[in-house]
Amino acid sequence: MESVKKRLTEFSLEAHELYLNSSVPYLDGSPEPLLFFRDWIAPNKPVIIRNAFSHWPALNRWTPEYLREKVGSKVISVSVTPNGYADAVSGDRFVMPEERKMTFSAVLDVIQGKVQQRGVLYVQKQCSNLLDELPELTDDLEPHVPWMSTALGKLPDAVNFWLGEASAVTSSMYQPAVYHQTDDGDFKVIDQSDSKKVPWIPLDPLDPDLDRYPQYIRAHPISFSVKAGEMLYLPSLWFHHVQQSHGCIAVNFWYDMEYDIKYNYYQLLDTLSEDAGSS
Amino acid sequence: MESVKKRLTEFSLEAHELYLNSSVPYLDGSPEPLLFFRDWIAPNKPVIIRNAFSHWPALNRWTPEYLREKVGSKVISVSVTPNGYADAVSGDRFVMPEERKMTFSAVLDVIQGKVQQRGVLYVQKQCSNLLDELPELTDDLEPHVPWMSTALGKLPDAVNFWLGEASAVTSSMYQPAVYHQTDDGDFKVIDQSDSKKVPWIPLDPLDPDLDRYPQYIRAHPISFSVKAGEMLYLPSLWFHHVQQSHGCIAVNFWYDMEYDIKYNYYQLLDTLSEDAGSS
Repeated sequence: MESVKKRLTEFSLEAHELYLNSSVPYLDGSPEPLLFFRDWIAPNKPVIIRNAFSHWPALNRWTPEYLREKVGSKVISVSVTPNGYADAVSGDRFVMPEERKMTFSAVLDVIQGKVQQRGVLYVQKQCSNLLDELPELTDDLEPHVPWMSTALGKLPDAVNFWLGEASAVTSSMYQPAVYHQTDDGDFKVIDQSDSKKVPWIPLDPLDPDLDRYPQYIRAHPISFSVKAGEMLYLPSLWFHHVQQSHGCIAVNFWYDMEYDIKYNYYQLLDTLSEDAGSS
Repeated sequence: MESVKKRLTEFSLEAHELYLNSSVPYLDGSPEPLLFFRDWIAPNKPVIIRNAFSHWPALNRWTPEYLREKVGSKVISVSVTPNGYADAVSGDRFVMPEERKMTFSAVLDVIQGKVQQRGVLYVQKQCSNLLDELPELTDDLEPHVPWMSTALGKLPDAVNFWLGEASAVTSSMYQPAVYHQTDDGDFKVIDQSDSKKVPWIPLDPLDPDLDRYPQYIRAHPISFSVKAGEMLYLPSLWFHHVQQSHGCIAVNFWYDMEYDIKYNYYQLLDTLSEDAGSS
């Protein structure tokens, strides 16, 4: 297994020598679909696109006042956690947030600091909640990213609306559990005994446990900020961690990945890493 | 190393389940560059394109008579071997052909059977010989494949002219040697002692030595014929073996590969296979 470890280390170093950037580059304006496919999708590299949706009314319209007026009375799904970590690992449990139904206005009240609330709210339901729960807002944006749909030859599987102040950690196999807030305001972790174990990243990149995960020392994390009006292309199979600097709204478009040569290679890499790690 | 071998076997099986075809499919007509990139270049899959160069005058013009008239007196580089195997492994040597200068007409005389010759002739110099040695023929075809150049965002590195009846074997590290025909017509193998060893495929797919290369049993070779008027897209890093059913001419356009994520993964696979094979 030592030779496999050596090969994996070489592989990682060579990736950086060959094609990976040490920071996320910027493009200006909606790219031409073929060029975007060739330069970013095919090599699976992240990039930030500026001025790609300057024409969306949402950029100017989406103020708390407008949203209260337009969808304030709508009941939406909100994730509630004690610490802002939705879908994350806590101890040896993969704890999912408590799912609560609230009006959009009530969520804004908390996010704007008008109402105090124990626990952190995060509108982050990842099943096309923009189209399903907030159809009144769809006139404020395009239903997909036209040049991306042309490049990939398909429409997004989901269009999601994110609203919150909290940090979200997108990160092995864990017993799923779910947070539940009791009447006295405390949060309990409740096991979901009928669920399969969930593959997830147990490591917190902001405070990596190097005793437990010594290989993380070889990782080359790239940090960057996505600002208002900017669009991030996050390729498939890139581990990521998202934090918000302040209360903000984001929209994401999920396009299904291709299960082709890159996925085939990735699976090989994943199983070899697991073998090498457990030896 | 047993677990690595197991992983490599799974990798190969999964490649076929995920995305590889068991035969080479056909497209009709010049494809749209983005579609071709997405469907064939990105997944690195071979395909035959019909009617992609029906407009080339070469398709009708290139008869022995026309070629004798147009370029018959031109001196060209011809590979000469005892058995038709140019650039191939013989015993423990990587033997390159004798490079001979002949007039185009003299080559045609041999290929048309008008003159008997010991040894097999093959016009197969792979350094843009069409443009360099036979510029008189360039009006008969396009200097590149427009939709491919658009897809890849670059022009071909080389445009090569192939003429011969012989089989060519493109297939490990070997001591390079070169054939040299002696005055009595015999072929000698002469070592090139100052050359580096050459990585090549020592296995003949028409008669694989499974005692020596038992892993070949796991290979899934795909056989197909490329007929007059058809164009083969052969992706980078695909081992291939070319035979000709009869005397024929081919033109190939070499576009440089991208040394990006797929090459990075391929290098890992290559080194792991070597480790696993030598253990």
